[in-house]
Amino acid sequence: MSNIPYKIFLEEDEMPKAYLNLRAFMKEKPEPMLNPQTFEPVTEEELNAVFCSACVEHELNVTDKYIEIPKPVQDFYKMYRPSPLVRAYNLEKLLDTPAEIYYKFEGTNTSGSHKLNSAVPQVYYAKEQGLTRLTTETGAGQWGTALAMASGFFGMDTTVYMVKVSSQQKPYRKAVIETYGAKVVPSPSETTEVGRAINKQYPGTGGSLGCAISEAVEVALSTENCRYALGSVLDHVLLHQSIIGLESKTALDKYGITPDVVIGCVGGGSNFGGLIAPYMADRLEGRNNVEFVAVEPASCPTLTRGRYAYDYGDIGKVTPLMKMYTLGSGFMPSPNHAGGLRYHGMNATVSKLYHDGYIKAVSYEQTKVFEVAKDFARVEGYLPAPESSHAIKATVEEALRCKETGEKKKILFGLTGTGYFDLSGYMKYNSGEMTDYIPTDEDLEAGFASLPEV
Amino acid sequence: MSNIPYKIFLEEDEMPKAYLNLRAFMKEKPEPMLNPQTFEPVTEEELNAVFCSACVEHELNVTDKYIEIPKPVQDFYKMYRPSPLVRAYNLEKLLDTPAEIYYKFEGTNTSGSHKLNSAVPQVYYAKEQGLTRLTTETGAGQWGTALAMASGFFGMDTTVYMVKVSSQQKPYRKAVIETYGAKVVPSPSETTEVGRAINKQYPGTGGSLGCAISEAVEVALSTENCRYALGSVLDHVLLHQSIIGLESKTALDKYGITPDVVIGCVGGGSNFGGLIAPYMADRLEGRNNVEFVAVEPASCPTLTRGRYAYDYGDIGKVTPLMKMYTLGSGFMPSPNHAGGLRYHGMNATVSKLYHDGYIKAVSYEQTKVFEVAKDFARVEGYLPAPESSHAIKATVEEALRCKETGEKKKILFGLTGTGYFDLSGYMKYNSGEMTDYIPTDEDLEAGFASLPEV
Repeated sequence: MSNIPYKIFLEEDEMPKAYLNLRAFMKEKPEPMLNPQTFEPVTEEELNAVFCSACVEHELNVTDKYIEIPKPVQDFYKMYRPSPLVRAYNLEKLLDTPAEIYYKFEGTNTSGSHKLNSAVPQVYYAKEQGLTRLTTETGAGQWGTALAMASGFFGMDTTVYMVKVSSQQKPYRKAVIETYGAKVVPSPSETTEVGRAINKQYPGTGGSLGCAISEAVEVALSTENCRYALGSVLDHVLLHQSIIGLESKTALDKYGITPDVVIGCVGGGSNFGGLIAPYMADRLEGRNNVEFVAVEPASCPTLTRGRYAYDYGDIGKVTPLMKMYTLGSGFMPSPNHAGGLRYHGMNATVSKLYHDGYIKAVSYEQTKVFEVAKDFARVEGYLPAPESSHAIKATVEEALRCKETGEKKKILFGLTGTGYFDLSGYMKYNSGEMTDYIPTDEDLEAGFASLPEV
Repeated sequence: MSNIPYKIFLEEDEMPKAYLNLRAFMKEKPEPMLNPQTFEPVTEEELNAVFCSACVEHELNVTDKYIEIPKPVQDFYKMYRPSPLVRAYNLEKLLDTPAEIYYKFEGTNTSGSHKLNSAVPQVYYAKEQGLTRLTTETGAGQWGTALAMASGFFGMDTTVYMVKVSSQQKPYRKAVIETYGAKVVPSPSETTEVGRAINKQYPGTGGSLGCAISEAVEVALSTENCRYALGSVLDHVLLHQSIIGLESKTALDKYGITPDVVIGCVGGGSNFGGLIAPYMADRLEGRNNVEFVAVEPASCPTLTRGRYAYDYGDIGKVTPLMKMYTLGSGFMPSPNHAGGLRYHGMNATVSKLYHDGYIKAVSYEQTKVFEVAKDFARVEGYLPAPESSHAIKATVEEALRCKETGEKKKILFGLTGTGYFDLSGYMKYNSGEMTDYIPTDEDLEAGFASLPEV
């Protein structure tokens, strides 16, 4: 073994002072968001009604390469960051590969995932703007927990619309969110017009993420000093998540390591976009030739089988249109799909880079993903989130290829969170009840039928 | 603010290479364990039938000050250690105290607590001895998870007898243990004589820790190449947990800091004994004058209201007798007691040091503990385990005293784990349904009545 430690830590003064704005490094920018009524580029004013203004400013900023991280946000980061940058010695040994494997683990904070990285600045900026309330939605609960944590710290009155069936099945997630002082409203609720309408139309419904988003946005638009906060997909979220990649690069640079491949799982694209940010910026400017691999579930194959088109961000078709890889807002993964990464679309910047050939994409069936997740947990200790395990699967495949060819590739992957909170997938896999389903071309056509004609 | 970072990390080569054996520093040693039949000091041979021999050797070793950590155990530690040593700047600010507060956080590994520190060497030594099976019991599940993790890594066939009601109420804990490859048997089971007897006597019983211990020990004694592993109370467990204190001291020494007070929660005493180990060793040899505070629930007041006497370690009265502070093996905390720290006795070394005046003990009612736990979670980010929160409560009290007196005391406390897995207590507290119960003198007398006459 070399002299590289199992974990590379950063000193406090080595931590990033500015986010990296990937779009500023791109010669060809992503297409602008469009107003869903007029099909004209959406204006700052329109977005300001929904989101806090610093986030809107960042969302529309495609020119500044670096954006300063406010001091109070840096201080919050110091409580749970830097996250561990781990050399996976034991995984390498298990695979008997000449490849060097590194991973950045974002699951050691209480929210259990990378989501906190964006929740902190979003709440901070809202507070600075003089806002007093935030609304958001949560499905599995990681984003809701992250926003509750940041809200508890900075003193923000936050309401989380939690998909009703999830709030019932995950009472402990609800308990964490409430312990941090945020309010949980099972959605659909009787507190909004859209919630009441859905309850009337579908009595006893367990709710959906689309409906929870609509409720949260309705309240944000109709309440004074209140805005809506989103945990993925948008470019200001990617900007905040660049801290993952920046820390990784600083750590690896200390040992003179530039990865040959960077691998991450993709749902809405925020963790992947954040992880690759500094390496992609260098590649765009010709300073490296790193390969980037986005990994998605075969049951929700947004990049590998989706279309590059303007589409709505939500099933209710109220959000601006984004030019992105999409399966159509009407697409739903089959019911046997476990875990997250079930979003129909993909962040616009990641989509553009993929379209332009800078990113490769692969997909795997979930039983194959859980198989390597268990191996990883056993030899590396950390129980990975099902989502993150997609990146492990692609890493293992790459490392086994290296074993065949003898290549000593350096692989960096993102381990976005722990599997503590989503053990139902592991239970299904352990009991042999987990199955796979790959959508047919007909399934996909049904989703594409929901695409708007722009 | 000074130049001390929020988190003090250690480089890999600064990590401990040897455990610290506190008893070797004591002029007055703890009393020996006694055979429960003969009342004679228990022999190495007797213990070897139950525990793996390296653990027995360490259990009986009161002379060697340091015991080398085997290289493979050091390597496992490198995957999840050093644990963060945190300066609680935000808690200090909340309390407006001149005190400096530091804490050692043991909850970032997948088992969620310090238990893994002892599981790793226990499984390693068993493997080295050529054993092929281990048994243990688990209540809430932290120890079972830790032993399963270590067993998965080193390749040991491990069976966890899990209190039946807990295995039903915590299916996810069971899922984690199984994901790491260990077998979970709800206790009482039909696989042992004692289990069958209990099931016959109490049909439909949800089980107890005492019964699960008895089942695990029965199987260990009657199975070839099999031993029993215990996660607390015994001195070899304290020895392994000294890594907590050793890392803490190395980290603080870098900044020239010696704490004035070291505070930890106590159940069986293993985390507390491990945390204080190096500072207590120095105090015993006159190199410091550190104050040590053990914190326990008012509902299970082993040190503050117990007796210093020989007692059984288990309710079934099959274990050796230990000279310790105890409430009597027949003592049961009132049903409204949430979380752990419900053991009737206390590690013999901690008991002896308390008896000789080196340790102070305080107790708090649980609603007061959850109150500060929520404050801590909000400002420091980490959601603390209810057990660990007892140490937070004592720390807050000390810091508030410093505010009155103006003293700039340096306080170090142990944050032993996360509250992720035991949120039912938080739910009760959040809903205002949590109550307190302090046992009456009569309650305690009933427990003392179970003490053996030695």
